[in-house]
Amino acid sequence: MELGIVFLGTSAAVPTRYRGLPSIAVVHRGSIVLLDAGEGTQAALTRAGLSPLRVEAIFITHLHGDHFFGLPGLLQSMGMLGRKTPLLVAGPRGLYGFLREAFRASRWLPGFPLYVAELEPGEKLVLPSGLEVESFPVSHTIPAMGYRLVEPRRKPRINIEKARRLGIEPGPLLAKLQRGEPVTVAGRIVRPEEVVEEQPRAVIVYTGDTRPCPTVVEAARNATVLIHDATFTSSMAREAYEQGHSTARDAARAASTADARLLVLFHISARYETPDPLLAEARIHHDNVVAAEDYLKIPIRP
Amino acid sequence: MELGIVFLGTSAAVPTRYRGLPSIAVVHRGSIVLLDAGEGTQAALTRAGLSPLRVEAIFITHLHGDHFFGLPGLLQSMGMLGRKTPLLVAGPRGLYGFLREAFRASRWLPGFPLYVAELEPGEKLVLPSGLEVESFPVSHTIPAMGYRLVEPRRKPRINIEKARRLGIEPGPLLAKLQRGEPVTVAGRIVRPEEVVEEQPRAVIVYTGDTRPCPTVVEAARNATVLIHDATFTSSMAREAYEQGHSTARDAARAASTADARLLVLFHISARYETPDPLLAEARIHHDNVVAAEDYLKIPIRP
Repeated sequence: MELGIVFLGTSAAVPTRYRGLPSIAVVHRGSIVLLDAGEGTQAALTRAGLSPLRVEAIFITHLHGDHFFGLPGLLQSMGMLGRKTPLLVAGPRGLYGFLREAFRASRWLPGFPLYVAELEPGEKLVLPSGLEVESFPVSHTIPAMGYRLVEPRRKPRINIEKARRLGIEPGPLLAKLQRGEPVTVAGRIVRPEEVVEEQPRAVIVYTGDTRPCPTVVEAARNATVLIHDATFTSSMAREAYEQGHSTARDAARAASTADARLLVLFHISARYETPDPLLAEARIHHDNVVAAEDYLKIPIRP
Repeated sequence: MELGIVFLGTSAAVPTRYRGLPSIAVVHRGSIVLLDAGEGTQAALTRAGLSPLRVEAIFITHLHGDHFFGLPGLLQSMGMLGRKTPLLVAGPRGLYGFLREAFRASRWLPGFPLYVAELEPGEKLVLPSGLEVESFPVSHTIPAMGYRLVEPRRKPRINIEKARRLGIEPGPLLAKLQRGEPVTVAGRIVRPEEVVEEQPRAVIVYTGDTRPCPTVVEAARNATVLIHDATFTSSMAREAYEQGHSTARDAARAASTADARLLVLFHISARYETPDPLLAEARIHHDNVVAAEDYLKIPIRP
């Protein structure tokens, strides 16, 4: 899979029989970026057939235990598996102190380069794999942020129609243009920009825990996939806002306003045995909605 | 189940597809005592149909991450489930600082009375349920201890044969003796001690991670169940000792020397797809051996 999403845990607050605590793997070529790392993430990675050694970065949305208590065990397992490559762990202020104390208590230090970054919303990083990650503010009961992942720039594609109109047939001249060099056709210089075009880049947006929030809509503008807090149905809207969460309807409205292509309902309360009531109300507002479930795989570029 | 054991996680160091990280539930009447709490304990409790609200105490053998990183999430879930009853968490020095930092980072404090006790080997407690718990020293790579659990004193049972020899048939006289009162039979005073006898108390011993060690044999003397580190087979004895562990043969020899009735091989390395090689070598030295597996239930008093 060139690019895709594997859901490792999809519950809210407490694990259920069927749903583990929040964690999402974005798989890009050989490497994995984790979004949140609730307790049980390392076991879920193993069950999903994803090696912890391929994780290049972990982004934590906020420091509620269900979203990051899986970190110390995951990092130690990476060490036990012989990891030598660097790892970035990024999240809100407080993350560093927590990890330091977990390492201290368990008398362990990573045997690989571990970078812990305490981020603010609005920061942007480019990972070694080329994935761009940007944090954006959301509205929860404690400081929290979402993450917007943008696929690396892809090899420009030649528009064969345009080329033909300029008198260039597929062959060595086109190849030269694709390499970024100008060619001469019937005495006229044709520059690459005239026939190649940028390919659209996939955008994955994950809100973490949030109330409905304009910054989410902004971050999710034209996103390929929006993974949105959908803890409750709208019959529990008051509880949702009090607890810093969204309803499935809120999620669908945000996806619709932002023109996000696919909406994934995420962080589903243990009170719902099936996600059907959440899906039903979301589909009134957006026509491409799925409910996250553990080990669900969404290929973006298969 | 009046008294029994439910295995929640049985692996060594890292979780596998089939085995979670170490945790054992000792169920005694309505209440649960946990021995170790590796990452994933709360989810395993739920899957085993055991409520986290029934846990009265948690004993940690040593502060290697795989044995206690499940604590913060478990405690927070107890809070979210509305726990109000007291909880004891006991383990080696360093436990308190770890929990305090986990709570601080996640901006959470328990809404129930939480007692954190940093124990030394050789300490003894009696829990509210009446279970007696004693820590004993073991030999690992860091300070570590095992736990010996003794069932509460049981209602004395009348020896019908003895009573008959004294001329007492089942009926009101026997009932009186059972209540602890003397009776007069054919002019002779019979005291309760002459016909009632103490019932043996079940003893469950858990070593945690340890090399073969005489203190284990001492603690396991006549135990009903000995749950022993059996990370490797004896072909890897050197690795076992270097890493502070036992082989299945070591475990069986300890059980045999101690006259423990049942031996449970525990903390099984991920390298064994089935426990058969461990069982094979253990059964040479002890005739009542099982290998722990996740969700295995051992009823002691059904």
